[in-house]
Amino acid sequence: MDNPKDAKPLEMPPVLAHVQAAVDKLAACETIKAAIEAVKRDDEKTLVDQIAITEVEAPPFHEEVRAKDFVRRLEELGLKASIDEEGNVVARRAGKGNGPTLVLAAHLDTVFPAGTNPKVRQEGNRYLAPGISDDARGLAAILQVLRTLQEFKIQTIGDILFVGSVGEEGNGDLRGSKYLFNKSGIHIDGFISVDGVNVNRVLCGATGSKRYRVHFDGPGGHSWNAFGTPSAIHAIGRAIAKIADLQTVSDPKTTFTCGTIKGGTTVNSIAAHVEMELDMRSAGAKELDELEARILPIFEQAAKDENARWGYKDEDGVKLTLEPIGHRPGGGQKDEVSVLQAARGAMAALGIPLYSYAFASTDHNVAVNKGIPATTLGGGGKEGFNHNVKEWYEPVDAYQGPQLAMLTSLVLVGVEGVSEPVLEKRA
Amino acid sequence: MDNPKDAKPLEMPPVLAHVQAAVDKLAACETIKAAIEAVKRDDEKTLVDQIAITEVEAPPFHEEVRAKDFVRRLEELGLKASIDEEGNVVARRAGKGNGPTLVLAAHLDTVFPAGTNPKVRQEGNRYLAPGISDDARGLAAILQVLRTLQEFKIQTIGDILFVGSVGEEGNGDLRGSKYLFNKSGIHIDGFISVDGVNVNRVLCGATGSKRYRVHFDGPGGHSWNAFGTPSAIHAIGRAIAKIADLQTVSDPKTTFTCGTIKGGTTVNSIAAHVEMELDMRSAGAKELDELEARILPIFEQAAKDENARWGYKDEDGVKLTLEPIGHRPGGGQKDEVSVLQAARGAMAALGIPLYSYAFASTDHNVAVNKGIPATTLGGGGKEGFNHNVKEWYEPVDAYQGPQLAMLTSLVLVGVEGVSEPVLEKRA
Repeated sequence: MDNPKDAKPLEMPPVLAHVQAAVDKLAACETIKAAIEAVKRDDEKTLVDQIAITEVEAPPFHEEVRAKDFVRRLEELGLKASIDEEGNVVARRAGKGNGPTLVLAAHLDTVFPAGTNPKVRQEGNRYLAPGISDDARGLAAILQVLRTLQEFKIQTIGDILFVGSVGEEGNGDLRGSKYLFNKSGIHIDGFISVDGVNVNRVLCGATGSKRYRVHFDGPGGHSWNAFGTPSAIHAIGRAIAKIADLQTVSDPKTTFTCGTIKGGTTVNSIAAHVEMELDMRSAGAKELDELEARILPIFEQAAKDENARWGYKDEDGVKLTLEPIGHRPGGGQKDEVSVLQAARGAMAALGIPLYSYAFASTDHNVAVNKGIPATTLGGGGKEGFNHNVKEWYEPVDAYQGPQLAMLTSLVLVGVEGVSEPVLEKRA
Repeated sequence: MDNPKDAKPLEMPPVLAHVQAAVDKLAACETIKAAIEAVKRDDEKTLVDQIAITEVEAPPFHEEVRAKDFVRRLEELGLKASIDEEGNVVARRAGKGNGPTLVLAAHLDTVFPAGTNPKVRQEGNRYLAPGISDDARGLAAILQVLRTLQEFKIQTIGDILFVGSVGEEGNGDLRGSKYLFNKSGIHIDGFISVDGVNVNRVLCGATGSKRYRVHFDGPGGHSWNAFGTPSAIHAIGRAIAKIADLQTVSDPKTTFTCGTIKGGTTVNSIAAHVEMELDMRSAGAKELDELEARILPIFEQAAKDENARWGYKDEDGVKLTLEPIGHRPGGGQKDEVSVLQAARGAMAALGIPLYSYAFASTDHNVAVNKGIPATTLGGGGKEGFNHNVKEWYEPVDAYQGPQLAMLTSLVLVGVEGVSEPVLEKRA
């Protein structure tokens, strides 16, 4: 998403002194300065990577081919890379030792089904292909960070774990990120995802969501002959009416909607089945759980009320099935969190104004929910029609993306002889 | 529908004396006795008609070809037949004069779309084809009545109007019958429809129905970004919950159901549209109107409540559209009504027990609603899978259908020199 034309830099308290000190030391270091320049010099190289990655299909739940390609690219740049059980590509660039571990990630998957033509087409300075921005740009940006660290033999203190994640989009339900934090056994102290292009935006929090497909099934019957039989549609109507009047807190923002509904077969039949998709979201993890705990019993009660209305026992009447179809954990972070501070410090040093400081739902959700400092940064350039086959990318000041990802990472993990890590080691 | 295996004759008060007297006179008349025998003799001829009629397509709203065919068949039997503006075939067999006018009808339309193969297939004594029973049997039965009256030159006192009606099924919404009674200008004193096969059933009343497709349309939006926008699905849920708790009278039986629902586009969008099909029925005309008057305002209020919940003005929020999709007028009749008495008297004379005396929704609805004595009788034989391409017919004692239709009609219109009309002339 581009910035609005009248975007103004946000006014925020200054970056914490120890973070600013680390930024200043790195910005004054000749090697780091040269590395930052090299990212700009390699702008075309990053774009070539981006186009090549785009043309390797990565449909939802089938990122294998792109994953193997990404392993090869990381290994060509000198890292040992592997694919974990969930399908994530993971490659560690070791620090000097005893430092924190930062993940620098971008997601492998696109929203496009297998068979969608991924061939990139150029029109002037615009490159068009499904997924070219989201998130081939992020993958190319973190490769460029690695290329530069390797070229300048920058010895970090902490480790940087380069990750190509699976299942960030839609029904992928953050499965790659969830595996990384919940099952991989890898110790992680901080997390940066490069997703989208906007370098003027720092994502400071994670919108959590829980989604259910709610089914009601009943005996059904002819509207006249079987009148007196509980109706699946009547039952769900009872639930929706109550949900419609729920009040939620505005801070942290907490929302709900009954998004889709379908049921019944003919106008003159008592509906035997209806299903509805429910979306619940919150910027607060606790508030999301509370909302869920308020809404789910409403469905159970609605079935009971509908059955009682007609004198039916629950076992003979309308029955409820709750099918979870999505859970993106969420939460907020303090502005003082190291990853957010490092990102803002790096932006200032690179002359990139901060226009937006916001919540969204990305791979960083899982980290934020677990209290691990995390953000999502833009990969640089301009984009349009994301999640649409007309998706396009323009490499306008594109190098700012990998520059920002690199400098933020270095502030966090520290550079030997230059700066101490800002990222805290977790217990 | 076949009778249940354990069906028992209903116990009802005896037929009124003057009706029984007319039945007895006809049953004792040699010509009438011979005519009744001739119907049995012509059993095969009736079946040949039925098969031929079945094989002339008559999809909903396009009964023209079968209508022309039916005109030809009536004219071959010596009547002048015409097709009215709605598409009904009408042919009058004049009585001696100054008697009542009885309509003897069957419906031309089937439920099957154009292009459905109407070819009749025989398996043993079973004949299979879409519409072979419903209502090709009825059409063949009334043709057989005409054939017999002509053969025996039976001079009735009142007129019999032979009618092939259009639009009896589904969305046809009784348009043929409505035209006949409301717009044709034809004076009618009584009405018999031959529909279905069951000769052991007399339909004594008309289930009325009113149907609406209910639409709610609102602004829609993203479930997170646009939270606070009224939802079409939430609005309709509010309405359904109230409808679900409505109480209706059981005598006359009065029913309702929200039969189908669909709306919304994705789980994470506030629904901009939802639509639902509502069915309301009653054996009482007044009760149906009352139910409608209770339910319709609930929808209007639901839109207002949903808009008010989010502080929206009604012009900016969710809006209601009520689309009427069906109106079948209904009502009950006293057991003493001439057409019902005549049918019961004729059944007894023909040795056909009465197993069922019920309400349903057929072409007779319009008449019953207007206070014109009416019933629906079976065409004889056995049937299965009506309204399904697997529909079948078995000519078991099939002649009983046209025998019953003929004798009931003669009781009502009277036969010169034998019996006076039982059917009252309306003002």
